[in-house]
Amino acid sequence: MRIPILKLKRYLLISVQVDLDDQTALQFQEDLLNKIHQEGSAGVVIDLTSVDMIDSFIAKVLGDVVEMSNLMGAKVVLTGIQPGVAITLIDMGIMLEEVPTALDLEQGLDKLQQELEA
Amino acid sequence: MRIPILKLKRYLLISVQVDLDDQTALQFQEDLLNKIHQEGSAGVVIDLTSVDMIDSFIAKVLGDVVEMSNLMGAKVVLTGIQPGVAITLIDMGIMLEEVPTALDLEQGLDKLQQELEA
Repeated sequence: MRIPILKLKRYLLISVQVDLDDQTALQFQEDLLNKIHQEGSAGVVIDLTSVDMIDSFIAKVLGDVVEMSNLMGAKVVLTGIQPGVAITLIDMGIMLEEVPTALDLEQGLDKLQQELEA
Repeated sequence: MRIPILKLKRYLLISVQVDLDDQTALQFQEDLLNKIHQEGSAGVVIDLTSVDMIDSFIAKVLGDVVEMSNLMGAKVVLTGIQPGVAITLIDMGIMLEEVPTALDLEQGLDKLQQELEA
């Protein structure tokens, strides 16, 4: 199955509301990069509110997605990171220091707008 | 599987990007009504851009979702209705005359804002 990617003006919105297995995560990575390219998106908000836990593979894929999107010129904001997810990301050494985060989707969008105007 | 429902301020955004089977459609109906209740949403945009075709059962469920949401006090805008979907809806006698429609998600959101301010 695929994770839906919503286009809203210059941004892409993704709310991950399924358990991310390896296949879904890789498909998402590919879909998102294609969509950024296709739409010429300036920014992406990935909302992880519904994700309780991730394993090391998914953590790596997420870290990669952020870096790849940045390389392509799209700013990524992660929102709704839960404790378990934060722990796995840091344990895995996935540094998201440069990545803006926010509490939820709307704050993520606001943040994106600030970052892009800065 | 469930169709993700994104909350953005007073609105809910849904982009249907899977084939709607009966079970998924009914689950979506239930999830959406629960979410409207839970978030006290003023409006809903359902984007059908990725849906090529629907059968009579799905058409009925969609029509019902719109009426139920309206009953609960949330305005629904449908966006991205493709020819095949439009044909099925009308053939089925599902009258969406009162339902605002728009080309895509962002125009749908604009329309929702106009409707709610009117």
